Amino acid sequence: MAHKYVYLFNEGDGSMRELLGGKGANLAEMTKLGMPVPQGFTVSTEACTRFYDDGKVIADDILAQIDQALEQMEEITGKKFADKKNPLLVSVRSGSRASMPGMMDTILNLGINDDVAKSLIAGNSDPSFERFVYDSYRRFIQMFSDVVMEVPKHTFEVIIDEIKAARGTSEDADLTAGDMKEMVEKFKAYYKEQKGSDFPSDPRDQMIESIKAVFRSWDNPRANVYRRMNDIPYSWGTAVNVQAMVFGNLNENSGTGVAFTRDPATGEKVLFGEYLINAQGEDVVAGTRTPNPISQLHEEMPEVYDEFVDYAYKLEEHYKDMQDMEFTIENGKLYMLQTRSGKRTVAAALKIAVDLVEEGLIDEDEAVLRVDPKQLDALLLPQFDQDALDKAEIIGSALAASPGAASGKVVLTAEAAVKQHNAGEKVILVRLETSPEDIEGMAAAQGILTVRGGMTSHAAVVARGMGICCVSGCGEIRINEAEGYFELGGKKYNEGDHISLDGTAGNIYGEAVATVEATITGDFDKFMHWADSKRRMKVRTNADTPQDAQKAIDFGAEGIGLCRTEHMFFEGTRIKNMREMIVAQSVEARKAALAKLLPYQQGDFEEMYKVLKGRPMTIRFLDPPLHEFLPTKAEDIEELAKELNISVDELNDVITSLHEFNPMMGHRGCRLAVTYPEIAEMQTTAVINAAINVNKAYPEYKIVPEIMIPLIGEVKELKFVKDVVTATADKLIADAGVELEYLVGTMIEIPRACLTADAVAKEADFFSFGTNDLTQMTFGFSRDDAGNFLDAYYEENIFESDPFARLDQTGVGQLVEMAVELGKKAHPELQLGICGEHGGDPSSVEFCHEVGLDYVSCSPFRVPIARLAAAQASIKEGK
Amino acid sequence: MAHKYVYLFNEGDGSMRELLGGKGANLAEMTKLGMPVPQGFTVSTEACTRFYDDGKVIADDILAQIDQALEQMEEITGKKFADKKNPLLVSVRSGSRASMPGMMDTILNLGINDDVAKSLIAGNSDPSFERFVYDSYRRFIQMFSDVVMEVPKHTFEVIIDEIKAARGTSEDADLTAGDMKEMVEKFKAYYKEQKGSDFPSDPRDQMIESIKAVFRSWDNPRANVYRRMNDIPYSWGTAVNVQAMVFGNLNENSGTGVAFTRDPATGEKVLFGEYLINAQGEDVVAGTRTPNPISQLHEEMPEVYDEFVDYAYKLEEHYKDMQDMEFTIENGKLYMLQTRSGKRTVAAALKIAVDLVEEGLIDEDEAVLRVDPKQLDALLLPQFDQDALDKAEIIGSALAASPGAASGKVVLTAEAAVKQHNAGEKVILVRLETSPEDIEGMAAAQGILTVRGGMTSHAAVVARGMGICCVSGCGEIRINEAEGYFELGGKKYNEGDHISLDGTAGNIYGEAVATVEATITGDFDKFMHWADSKRRMKVRTNADTPQDAQKAIDFGAEGIGLCRTEHMFFEGTRIKNMREMIVAQSVEARKAALAKLLPYQQGDFEEMYKVLKGRPMTIRFLDPPLHEFLPTKAEDIEELAKELNISVDELNDVITSLHEFNPMMGHRGCRLAVTYPEIAEMQTTAVINAAINVNKAYPEYKIVPEIMIPLIGEVKELKFVKDVVTATADKLIADAGVELEYLVGTMIEIPRACLTADAVAKEADFFSFGTNDLTQMTFGFSRDDAGNFLDAYYEENIFESDPFARLDQTGVGQLVEMAVELGKKAHPELQLGICGEHGGDPSSVEFCHEVGLDYVSCSPFRVPIARLAAAQASIKEGK
Repeated sequence: MAHKYVYLFNEGDGSMRELLGGKGANLAEMTKLGMPVPQGFTVSTEACTRFYDDGKVIADDILAQIDQALEQMEEITGKKFADKKNPLLVSVRSGSRASMPGMMDTILNLGINDDVAKSLIAGNSDPSFERFVYDSYRRFIQMFSDVVMEVPKHTFEVIIDEIKAARGTSEDADLTAGDMKEMVEKFKAYYKEQKGSDFPSDPRDQMIESIKAVFRSWDNPRANVYRRMNDIPYSWGTAVNVQAMVFGNLNENSGTGVAFTRDPATGEKVLFGEYLINAQGEDVVAGTRTPNPISQLHEEMPEVYDEFVDYAYKLEEHYKDMQDMEFTIENGKLYMLQTRSGKRTVAAALKIAVDLVEEGLIDEDEAVLRVDPKQLDALLLPQFDQDALDKAEIIGSALAASPGAASGKVVLTAEAAVKQHNAGEKVILVRLETSPEDIEGMAAAQGILTVRGGMTSHAAVVARGMGICCVSGCGEIRINEAEGYFELGGKKYNEGDHISLDGTAGNIYGEAVATVEATITGDFDKFMHWADSKRRMKVRTNADTPQDAQKAIDFGAEGIGLCRTEHMFFEGTRIKNMREMIVAQSVEARKAALAKLLPYQQGDFEEMYKVLKGRPMTIRFLDPPLHEFLPTKAEDIEELAKELNISVDELNDVITSLHEFNPMMGHRGCRLAVTYPEIAEMQTTAVINAAINVNKAYPEYKIVPEIMIPLIGEVKELKFVKDVVTATADKLIADAGVELEYLVGTMIEIPRACLTADAVAKEADFFSFGTNDLTQMTFGFSRDDAGNFLDAYYEENIFESDPFARLDQTGVGQLVEMAVELGKKAHPELQLGICGEHGGDPSSVEFCHEVGLDYVSCSPFRVPIARLAAAQASIKEGK
Repeated sequence: MAHKYVYLFNEGDGSMRELLGGKGANLAEMTKLGMPVPQGFTVSTEACTRFYDDGKVIADDILAQIDQALEQMEEITGKKFADKKNPLLVSVRSGSRASMPGMMDTILNLGINDDVAKSLIAGNSDPSFERFVYDSYRRFIQMFSDVVMEVPKHTFEVIIDEIKAARGTSEDADLTAGDMKEMVEKFKAYYKEQKGSDFPSDPRDQMIESIKAVFRSWDNPRANVYRRMNDIPYSWGTAVNVQAMVFGNLNENSGTGVAFTRDPATGEKVLFGEYLINAQGEDVVAGTRTPNPISQLHEEMPEVYDEFVDYAYKLEEHYKDMQDMEFTIENGKLYMLQTRSGKRTVAAALKIAVDLVEEGLIDEDEAVLRVDPKQLDALLLPQFDQDALDKAEIIGSALAASPGAASGKVVLTAEAAVKQHNAGEKVILVRLETSPEDIEGMAAAQGILTVRGGMTSHAAVVARGMGICCVSGCGEIRINEAEGYFELGGKKYNEGDHISLDGTAGNIYGEAVATVEATITGDFDKFMHWADSKRRMKVRTNADTPQDAQKAIDFGAEGIGLCRTEHMFFEGTRIKNMREMIVAQSVEARKAALAKLLPYQQGDFEEMYKVLKGRPMTIRFLDPPLHEFLPTKAEDIEELAKELNISVDELNDVITSLHEFNPMMGHRGCRLAVTYPEIAEMQTTAVINAAINVNKAYPEYKIVPEIMIPLIGEVKELKFVKDVVTATADKLIADAGVELEYLVGTMIEIPRACLTADAVAKEADFFSFGTNDLTQMTFGFSRDDAGNFLDAYYEENIFESDPFARLDQTGVGQLVEMAVELGKKAHPELQLGICGEHGGDPSSVEFCHEVGLDYVSCSPFRVPIARLAAAQASIKEGK
C-alpha cells in the first residue's frame, strides 16, 4: 500500500500532532468529539519533507491522495468545486507541530471564479449577497497573487484607491456590489499584466498551487528566524489544512471571534476573548473595527454563546490545559475553527499550572512540565511600563544580549559610569566593546550598549552574570568618545542624554522610558518547590562577588559552580599590584607583587564563604591572558610606567612581548600556572587560608574548597599544577594544625581534554564543562568574531540556532558525552558539572541531565530557569 | 619470584635492548660472542622507571639485586670492592634504548679510597704506578662530586692550578706522584668544605649514589632537549652499566681508541678510527693530544690490531650494519668496551645501505629501513662550507624553522628584498614577523630571520614550502626599521651588512659564511627506487606556483595535494583587484572585481596543469580572512584609498569592520564562500575553464580537477558551497560541450568535522586532513602564540615534542582516526589524504599509513622524506 500522506479530519486525532501539525490534529480531535468543525483534510508534514526532498514539487502519488481526499470532502460537505448549485470554497492554511503564529501563509475563499461567483449569487436571495461574493472574490485574488505568485498584496491597493476616488469616497463600506465586481475585473487584468497569463480559474489548480505555496512558506526568512528563536527544528516541516469555508461576514446573524478559557495575562479562570458581528477573521486582526468582549455574545446570541462555552470547557478538560480557540458563526450556526494551548504570560502560566493541579486535572509532574523555563526570566527583571513603551520610538536594535529594561543617561567610559553612579545618576554605558577593565563601570550602569560583540561577548556574558540589561553588537552606532557623543540613525546622542534599552527584545529607545519592578506571584514558590522536589541535578551559579552569590542563593542556587578569580584583580589598588606582577622581571619580584595581592584575594574568598554558609564553591584559577590587565592607550601606558617606576620603553617591551595573534588560543589558563607556578601558589594560599579562617569562625559550615584548573588539554598539565596546589595546600593545613579536605579538579573546555578524559580523570576530583570555549574550539570559530558570518548561516539554514546559546549536541555534546563516559570509567567518583553559558539554557540543561552530570551552574538570574529545566528533564526521563 | 631488575653481562644478549639499553645489550652480546669484555652488570631501564615512580629512590628489592650482582661480578673478575690484594674498580655509565651520546652522566674509577689506593700501589712494582693511582683517585673525586653531589668539576681546577703554581709548572705531566696525592687530600678537604661531610669512602655507597645520579641524569635539561629533537620518549628511561675498569693509561703498552667499520662520512668500506697510547677515553674526547689513525696501530701493536679488526668485522657481520666501537688496551691486552650502529652522514647512509644489499648482508626492505628519512633533508639543500663555519662566530640562535644555509645582506622590508634581488644581490630578510604581503620578498631572499613566530609561523611554513632557509622567533632582536638596522647581542647590524643563517641548527652568524651545493650520490636514485617500490601511500606536494610544482615533481611528487589559491592574489595588480573585491559594497561591485581576478587565476591554474602533465591537483578555495589582504599602516591606507577611489574614512570603515579578535577562528575558509558565494563561483570558473583548455591542448593529460572547500565544521556548510560549485561547473562544462569529471571534497581541520565525518563524507569526494589547524583547535592554542609557553612545557616534560611538527597521535590522531572510520563507513570510495605540515614528518607519515590514508602531501623539499617514510611504514606493517 502506498504511504499515506493525506488525512481527512475524521481520520485523525489529537495525538497525531507530528504528522498533522497542531492545527490539523486538533481539528481532527474536535471532529472526533462531535463538535461542529467545517470539514476538510490535512496534507501531512511528511508530504512537506518530501516536497523539499523532491526539489520543491509535489510528487504524483501525493497529488493523487489529495484529489481523493478532495472528493471525499466534497461528499461529506455536500459541496463541490465549481458546482453550479453548491460550489465549495475552502481555506488553505499551514499548521506545523509547534505553533508559529503569523509566520507562514494562509489563503481564504479558494475555489471562486467568475462562474462560481454567479452560482453563489444565484443560490442566495439576500440582496447584500452579491457584494459579499465579489468582495470575497477580490480578496482571494489579492491573497493568492501575493502568497502564490509573488505579486505583492499592497500593489492591488492602487486599484482600490482609484475606484474609491472615482466614487468620491474613502470608505470600503461605500462601495457597491458593482464596484466590487469591477474591482475583480481590474485585479485580474492587473494580474495578467504582471504575470503574462490569466488568473487561474480552475479551483483544483488554485488549491494545488496554494498547498505548494504553504510548503514553500516553511522556508521563508521570518519563519526561519522564528524557529531559531524558539528552537523549532527545520526538519519538522509543516502540514497544510484544506478546510471548507464558513463565512462570519455573511450577514448580521454571522460573526467571528477568538477566546481563551482563562485570562492569558493573569491566569484567572474566566472566559476571556472578543468577537465581531458580520466579519471575517482578517477583520479582527486588522483592528479596523473594535471587537466586543466575549461576555457580550451572551446577550446578543445566548444560544450560540452557551454552546460555545460548553465546547470551550469541554476542550479545556479534554486537553487539560487552557485553550485558545477561534470560532465563526455563519447565519446563526456556530463553527469551531481551531483550538490550541493558549500562549500566556509567566504569571498566568504559574497560576494555571498550580490551579490545574488543585482542580485535579493534572498532577504535579504535569504542572512542572507546563511552564516554559525560559519564561521565568521575565519574572525576575525590571520591565518597561507598557504604556510608556508603546509611545516610545525605537531608534535602533541589535542583539538581545542580556534581558531586562534599563533607562538612563548616556556615558561613554567606565570611569564616567562609576562617577555618575556615585553621584546618584542612572546611566547607560555605551562602548565600542567592553573589556575586563570596564567591570566597575558596567556594574554601576543600568544597562550596557555595545557596537561590537555577540551574545557571548564580554559585555553580554558579564551583563547576564550581573543581571544587567545589555544590547550588543549594534554596528550602526559610531562613537566619538573625544567629543562625547554617539551617532545612530543620523542622530547624535550626547553624554547626559537619556536613552533606554530593552534587553529582552534588543531594542534601543532615544529617550527615558519608565520601568516597573516585576511582581512575583504567590504561585511561584509553590511551583518551584514542586520543581525542586523532582530534579536530580543540583543547580549552582556563576558568581564572583558576595553580592552576586547572595542574589543567586535568593534565587535558589545551591552553591557556586564557577567563581572567576580574575575579576577580583581589577578593583582599586589591586590592578596596580597585578600589573607589578606582570612586569616583574624575576621570580622574586613576581612573588613580591603576588604577596601584595594575597590579602585581597583571601579576603574576597572569606566573604564569599560567609555568604555561602557551607554551600560548595568551585574557584577557577587565573584564566585570561595577562595582556588583558595592561592598558593599550599611549597616555595610560605613560601613566602606568610612572606608577610602576619603570621606563615607558620597558613597559612597552612587556606589552609587545605579551601581544598575541589569537588571544583566545594564547598564553592563558593553566598555561599561566605552568610558566608562573607562583601565581597558583598564591591563589592556593588564598583559598586554603580563607577556608581555614571561616571554618574556625563557623565550624558548622564544614567548607571543602574546590580548586579548578582551567584550560587543560593534557593530563600532565593538570598533574603539574595540581602538584603545586597540593604541595602548597598540604603545608598550610599542616602548619595550621587543622583538618581540611579539599578538591582539585579541572575545566573541560579543550577538545583534547575530552578525547583524553580517562587520563585526565585520574588526576581530577571533578570535571566542570566549560562549554563556551569548548564550543569555540569544536567549531573553530571565536564567539566574538562569529557575528560576521552567523547571520548568513541562519539565512541559509546551515545553523538553526546559536551554538553559544544552545549546546550543539551533535558535535560539542558528543565530546561532552565522551568525556563523561571516559572520565567515569577511569574515576567512578568523579563529580561532573557544567559552568558554560549553556548551564542556563533549558534544552542544554536537559542534555546535561541525560548525559549524567551532577549539576549545572549558570548566572544568578538563570538559576530558576535551570532549576525548572532540570526538573523537567527528570520528569521526562521518568516517563 | 621477585621481578628481575639487574642482569650480569653474561645473562643478557643483543635482543634485550629495551630492557638493558643499547650499551648493555651489546656488552652482553659481545660477551656471548666470546669477545674480551670487562665484565659487570646492567641495572635495567625498568629499574629507572621504578626509581621515578617511587619518588627518586631505589627500592630495597632492587638494591638487593644490585648487591647480589656485585657479588657475582666480584667472583667473575676475581676482584673485590676494597680488597687488600685485588681491589675492584668500576665504571658506572648510562645506556638508554636509543643512543644519546654525551647527554647523560658517566663515572670512572669508582671503588677507590685511601686504603684501596695503597693496596693498588702495593700490588704493582712499576715505579710510575703510584702517580697513576693517585691521578685516577683525584679524577674520581672530581667526577663523583660533579655528577653525584653537584659540586662542579671546574671548581676543583683552582686547586690544581695552585699546586702547579707551587711547582712552577703549567703542565700536568710535570706533577709527581706526591703532587697527585696532595691533590687528592686537598680535593677531599674542598669537598668537605662544600658538603659538610667527608667524601664517601665506601665503594658500595659510591656505586649506589652513582647509579642514582645516572638515573637522575635521564631527566636533565640537555637530555630532555635531545630526546625532543630525536623523538625519544621520556617513558623509556635509561639503564645503568656497572663494569670493571680497564686502564688504557696504565703504561706505554696500553691505550684506547674508537673505530668505525666503514667511513661514516662517505660510507666507503674501510676501517676508520683513531687511538692514543697511554691514555683514557677522556683524553681522546678532550682533544689535548692528537690521536693516531687506526691504521698506525697495525705498525705499533700488530697482534692487537689484527685481533681488533677481526672483532670489528665479526661484529659488522653479526649486526649486519656499520659498527662504531670503543676499545682499550691494558698492558698489551685488548678489551672491547662498546659497539653500536655508527652515526653517519646521509651520503654514507645511502652508500652503506646499498652496499650491504650488494654484499648480500641485508635485503632491500632492510636497506630501506636503515636510512633515517629526516636525514634526506641534508641532501637537497645548500650547506655551509664546514671550515668557514668553524671559524664564524654565532651571534644568536632561535628556532630552526626551515633547514638550509644562507648568506646575504641584511634587508628589513620585502620591497627592499625584491629590489636588491633584482639587482643581483643575495639578501637575508629580517622581519618582526612575516605576512602574506611579504611573499615576494621572501621568495627573493636567501634566508628569512624573524623576531616572532614558532615552527609553524607564517615565515616558517612559507619558507619550508619554498625550500628557503629560515630562523624564526629570535626574541632578542630589536628592529629599527626607520633607521635601517637591527640590534642583537648589543651589536648593530645595518641594512647591507652581511649575515648568515643556519636553518638546520637555528644559528645566526654576523658575517658572510661560504656555502656549497649539496652533492647527490649515485646511490640515491637506486635507494629511492627501492623505497618507492615498497610504499602503498602516494606522495603529493603542497605547491602554489609552477616553479614549486616542478621542483616537487623533480623530487618525486605524484601530484599536488594542496594548492593554496590565496597566494595567487598578492602579485602585482592582482592585489589591487582583490582589494577592490573586498571593499565592494554590493554583490555587483564584488562580481565586477572578481571578474578582473578570473583571468589571472585561470591562467595560473593552466600553468600548473601544464607542469603537472596529468598528475592530480587539489585546489583549495580562498581561506584566509580578508583583512590579510588590506594594509595596516596609515600611509598605505591613504595610498590605497586613492588607488581605489574611495575616501580614507570609507576604507578605514571596511578595515574596522574586518577587525577580528581571533583571526584564526574568524571569518575565513568556507565561511567566506557562504557569505560571498560569488568568490566560489569565480574560483570554480577558473578551475574548470583551465582544465577544459589544457585538456583540449593536451588530451593525454585527462585532467580531473579536485576542488577543496576549507574549514568545514558542519555538513550543511559543505553542501551549500558544493551546490554553488557544481551549479557553476556543470553549466561551464555543458556550455563547452565537453566531458569533464571533477571532484569536490573538503579539508578536515575542525574538530567538529571529525566528530560528524559520517555526515560530511556523504557530500565529499575526498577528505584532506589539515592537521595544522586541527592541532590548533584540538589543543586550543594558536601556533603563532604557543611559543610563549611551549618551552616551559618541554622543560616540565608536559610535552615531549612539538605537536605542530609531530602529529599528536593521542588527541589529534584520535580525531583523524575517527574521521577516517566514520567517513569510510558512510562513503567507502572516499579518497583520504593529509596536507598539513605533518605530511612531511616521518613518524606522522607512519601514522597516516596505519590509519589508512591514500596519500600524504608535503612541501617540495620534504617529498623524498615522505616517500621514504611511507615506504618504511609499509615495510614495518608487513613484518
